[in-house]
Amino acid sequence: MNISDCFPIWNKLNEVQKDRILKSATERTVKKGTVVHNGSADCIGFLLIKSGLLRAYMLSEDGREITLFRLFEMDMCLFSASCMFQDIQFDINIEAEKETEFWIIPADVYKSIMEESIALSNYTNSILSSHFSDVMWLLEQIMWKSMDKRVAEFLLMEVNLEDNMRLEITHEEIAKHLGTAREVITRMLRYFQSEKAIELSRGVVKIIDKKKLQNFAEKGSANKNVRYS
Amino acid sequence: MNISDCFPIWNKLNEVQKDRILKSATERTVKKGTVVHNGSADCIGFLLIKSGLLRAYMLSEDGREITLFRLFEMDMCLFSASCMFQDIQFDINIEAEKETEFWIIPADVYKSIMEESIALSNYTNSILSSHFSDVMWLLEQIMWKSMDKRVAEFLLMEVNLEDNMRLEITHEEIAKHLGTAREVITRMLRYFQSEKAIELSRGVVKIIDKKKLQNFAEKGSANKNVRYS
Repeated sequence: MNISDCFPIWNKLNEVQKDRILKSATERTVKKGTVVHNGSADCIGFLLIKSGLLRAYMLSEDGREITLFRLFEMDMCLFSASCMFQDIQFDINIEAEKETEFWIIPADVYKSIMEESIALSNYTNSILSSHFSDVMWLLEQIMWKSMDKRVAEFLLMEVNLEDNMRLEITHEEIAKHLGTAREVITRMLRYFQSEKAIELSRGVVKIIDKKKLQNFAEKGSANKNVRYS
Repeated sequence: MNISDCFPIWNKLNEVQKDRILKSATERTVKKGTVVHNGSADCIGFLLIKSGLLRAYMLSEDGREITLFRLFEMDMCLFSASCMFQDIQFDINIEAEKETEFWIIPADVYKSIMEESIALSNYTNSILSSHFSDVMWLLEQIMWKSMDKRVAEFLLMEVNLEDNMRLEITHEEIAKHLGTAREVITRMLRYFQSEKAIELSRGVVKIIDKKKLQNFAEKGSANKNVRYS
């Protein structure tokens, strides 16, 4: 797969623009767990994902995390080049959740093409809108949804993503995705286990009753102790 | 003041584009409290603020609110025309906080110019980025900041905005801005009053010691009962 196959508006660029991207882009493969972009500390460029999975997250001063959105095959990430956009006034971090291959398009190359290509400028609008929508969805969840529903929903999302009912994930990792404490997650997971929706073992959450979990995601649990945190 | 004075990239549009905007835009004046845009129920077009103040907020199914950002003179709002952007997958509401004058540019006119003008497309990118930054700031506040700090910070912001230490605002209104319950706000305000930072009367919060309030905004209060909610 080449950069031209992954770049959605490739055919709307002219030959000079294509050539500039091809000559300046570099390919990189990172292992699971690699921090690809680190807040305001770097401005590596635009990422175009060839394969794998990246996680964009926010980090508090004291090291707490919450996942903002994920980047899949053919997704593009602007925020690793946010130094180029003066109106983007926030920093995010990006980490590989699986082994991931991506291209890096230097920020200045992307930006100069954006200034002459309506197609790239409008495409950038649509990427921004789509990540904005992800964050608005998250804000809605945080504001109006109890943590038990969010944990159940997260597990169902992971099942879809991994195409596997057996998830290799720790309580700490789930807590970091959802922006809460590990103890809160442990309490919820134990409750789901006691209700026979999941089965827990070291580093593994196995979904044994997807319908029950869907029910928790929609209606929450009747148990008040696990609703709030 | 004309539309050309408020539209930041007016001079980068060609005569045909300017003419289309001038002929299609309509001017509107609304009173304080008017709901200008109502989630997915309408798609009135792009708003360009001539004077006044609008508030963009999120509404839960059961009627709770939280302010996302505010729109001042010369600001443009895209989300009242979000039906035109397929990647914007969320609904917001917009309400006038003061008597407000604005122009409405029909969504189809704006969008068709955006498809031929790089200037407008890049300007749209910068509006999106700036509102995205507002929401990320909000998310950070909600995730990592205790409510006492947020209330103190909100009051200081209002003092700046109104250029007045006497704020005509109810506890209910503050609660809607910050996405919490009125009781929580009342508890915090009473604490600030007991510490002689503010003075409360019916529908009024008067700041009597700005430094103390700044201190609460930065360091929070020592009183555990008002930190969390």
